[in-house]
Amino acid sequence: MFTPQKKERLGDKLYGQILQQIVSGVLREGDRLPSENQMCQSFNVSRPVVRQALVRLQADGLVASRQGAGTFVQKRPPEGLTRFAEPSDVSEMLRCLELRMAVESQAAALAALRRTSSELKDIENALSAIEAEMKTGNLPVSADFAFHYAVAAASGNVLFPQVLQTLNDLIERGMTVALSLTREGTPERARRVFDEHYAIFQAIERRDVQSAELAMRYHLDRLRQRVTDSHRDR
Amino acid sequence: MFTPQKKERLGDKLYGQILQQIVSGVLREGDRLPSENQMCQSFNVSRPVVRQALVRLQADGLVASRQGAGTFVQKRPPEGLTRFAEPSDVSEMLRCLELRMAVESQAAALAALRRTSSELKDIENALSAIEAEMKTGNLPVSADFAFHYAVAAASGNVLFPQVLQTLNDLIERGMTVALSLTREGTPERARRVFDEHYAIFQAIERRDVQSAELAMRYHLDRLRQRVTDSHRDR
Amino acid sequence: MFTPQKKERLGDKLYGQILQQIVSGVLREGDRLPSENQMCQSFNVSRPVVRQALVRLQADGLVASRQGAGTFVQKRPPEGLTRFAEPSDVSEMLRCLELRMAVESQAAALAALRRTSSELKDIENALSAIEAEMKTGNLPVSADFAFHYAVAAASGNVLFPQVLQTLNDLIERGMTVALSLTREGTPERARRVFDEHYAIFQAIERRDVQSAELAMRYHLDRLRQRVTDSHRDR
Amino acid sequence: MFTPQKKERLGDKLYGQILQQIVSGVLREGDRLPSENQMCQSFNVSRPVVRQALVRLQADGLVASRQGAGTFVQKRPPEGLTRFAEPSDVSEMLRCLELRMAVESQAAALAALRRTSSELKDIENALSAIEAEMKTGNLPVSADFAFHYAVAAASGNVLFPQVLQTLNDLIERGMTVALSLTREGTPERARRVFDEHYAIFQAIERRDVQSAELAMRYHLDRLRQRVTDSHRDR
Repeated sequence: MFTPQKKERLGDKLYGQILQQIVSGVLREGDRLPSENQMCQSFNVSRPVVRQALVRLQADGLVASRQGAGTFVQKRPPEGLTRFAEPSDVSEMLRCLELRMAVESQAAALAALRRTSSELKDIENALSAIEAEMKTGNLPVSADFAFHYAVAAASGNVLFPQVLQTLNDLIERGMTVALSLTREGTPERARRVFDEHYAIFQAIERRDVQSAELAMRYHLDRLRQRVTDSHRDR
Repeated sequence: MFTPQKKERLGDKLYGQILQQIVSGVLREGDRLPSENQMCQSFNVSRPVVRQALVRLQADGLVASRQGAGTFVQKRPPEGLTRFAEPSDVSEMLRCLELRMAVESQAAALAALRRTSSELKDIENALSAIEAEMKTGNLPVSADFAFHYAVAAASGNVLFPQVLQTLNDLIERGMTVALSLTREGTPERARRVFDEHYAIFQAIERRDVQSAELAMRYHLDRLRQRVTDSHRDR
Repeated sequence: MFTPQKKERLGDKLYGQILQQIVSGVLREGDRLPSENQMCQSFNVSRPVVRQALVRLQADGLVASRQGAGTFVQKRPPEGLTRFAEPSDVSEMLRCLELRMAVESQAAALAALRRTSSELKDIENALSAIEAEMKTGNLPVSADFAFHYAVAAASGNVLFPQVLQTLNDLIERGMTVALSLTREGTPERARRVFDEHYAIFQAIERRDVQSAELAMRYHLDRLRQRVTDSHRDR
Repeated sequence: MFTPQKKERLGDKLYGQILQQIVSGVLREGDRLPSENQMCQSFNVSRPVVRQALVRLQADGLVASRQGAGTFVQKRPPEGLTRFAEPSDVSEMLRCLELRMAVESQAAALAALRRTSSELKDIENALSAIEAEMKTGNLPVSADFAFHYAVAAASGNVLFPQVLQTLNDLIERGMTVALSLTREGTPERARRVFDEHYAIFQAIERRDVQSAELAMRYHLDRLRQRVTDSHRDR
């Protein structure tokens, strides 16, 4: 269902090319991007495709445009971003994260309100699986998806887990990148990622609607920062 | 993609039967519902099906359960709700509204941030179509869907309109009920419905992120109240 | 306690002078404001005072600055704004509204959660008083304050009404302007203002936390728009 | 200005006495509190005073009431809570935190939007002072207050820092408790507290409105949990 159309696909490809240049250091923080016209020519794409790429690069905080002055590189993502993912996939992964932010924060709030004991148990089991996988050094991709799915399923609204199911492939690709970056990082960083999941579980356990929404939103926001900003996590 | 499974379908049917009894006055505000056991027997369904129906009746504010004392009718929806919709469809329509609340409020915020002039024009055209249809006494169902779709499309994230597209049928059925209730109501009520759409447009026009999110959220919250509470709109 | 310091007072005075020029049409939508240097000279104030005025004019949406190009008039408030209020008071009134937005939306959510029957009765009484005053053509300033105070008092946290009490004078001055503009407007507009209060009451009555927060936030957001934008309400 | 009145003072005293019994283990998780009547008699206070104490114990998540069945102990705060604070002060400290949540999350969002370079520098300096104090083993109470004050001051609305100033004494007493609990905890816990402040600073630095609001809200929510729930932080 959720398949990108042609404009998106070409825009995503161009996004990936510019991303690659930022990650590799060809374009540095503060550098100005070529003009829209120049990009149309040098990448041989139409103006809507260039705009599509620029809107997303800006949405993801990688570039910023200043009225009249052009578009400038704003921050440099960790180099692992283009090593663990196809550069042309990154734009779609971040669009997906933007939708997840809206859907899953509301799902977490509803889960705190309506979850049954057995739904809570499902969330807890997925949390334990994440911890176990992390200890063995595996990437807990399917455990991570299972965790988020279990929270959505506890919302008492079957449409929430259905949206996640539809995005399954895209979500797991994003998790693979984020968890790969985490595995390469410090033990503290891995701990933080686990803590964020634990905080979501705890808030749903004690039926704290506000905390549950907040903890989910915070987790996804940090996730976004981890994959887009190399200065982010120490 | 988003098709309800068996437990949901049976739960939705039972939901519809109880809803019918509340709307028709067989069950009145304050009345206690039969116990879960009794419902299993008299409707010949399993306990998970009964629970599914009760979770949603409670989510939609039609009943409330008091620990140890049972489940009681909380409010009576307008009788048009079961006249303009199949009673067994209502539960799914309200689940859909819950998801829309999450998705569309975020889409409106992003639209205020990123919309282009031509995307704004699409929103404005849909708004004019709603107004024109209302004047002729038609139900502006497809104009209403076009409005919400245009806002989602202006979010700069193709996944937002795609979610709406996937839910198209369900959303339009919900709009048919709400707009039919509105057409039967006072001119003031119709005016209010139009005003809510106008406020969303205006906030996106002046790039006011906070107002846009708020106006969309408010609109969908009022919509939910209009279809579930007969005392709601005067 | 909350008395503006010297920088604020001078900035507010300058804000009022620029506001006056926008309202009277000396400065029109799209016009560029003089540079910071020019303003320092022509108004004989220091640069921090000019900045203080510009930050607030921008915060209130009256001007917008474009990097490298200067600061431009963005929208024109209704002329009643400077007729019903001292121009040099307007900045402070809008700062106050910004704080109220944060404090009162949370207070409304907590009131929905914790209000007692007698606290609900206080809110309802204030609502009736607003309606009665509106009918006689009086400005319901003290009834309006009483309504907002009663909501804050129902939050189960005495600090919320105490903040409103501290801001009492400032809030009532803001209400006087907004209600005077409303009294001059169409009957529909007065109706809308009443409806917004009624929606807050109803959500608190049925203990709907999400709706209560939303209804309060929406009301204060519309209020802000009514006093700052002459195109706003028809 | 913000001085509790008699009902609050007596309610806070009773709150402190019940809190003491929960912390010391006289009342255990799951135990039922005496009835309102019994409390009136045994503590020799009026019913509104008992209600005031119960509303707040429930608001703070320490007890929960089940309709018809009474009020039960819900969770046990860390024993440091009554060692580092006067038990009769705890209720007021938590009320203050509830107001801070509303005010400071909005202030952080506005700071991300409007902060100047010198205001950002003030936030960074306070952050460095927190880190330095933590390293020497001192309680960074005034650096912590300075950090939150600097964020509020960067909001471009002088009322936000003024509210914090008014609550200065209460806020610092709360910080003393929380930071004392942190100092007794694991190094990881201290790290987490610092990280939360760092995340707020970073979001304001890169002008990310959504992240800044979220990071402040998350920090204050965790703070609340740390002081009210002994199971909270490992």
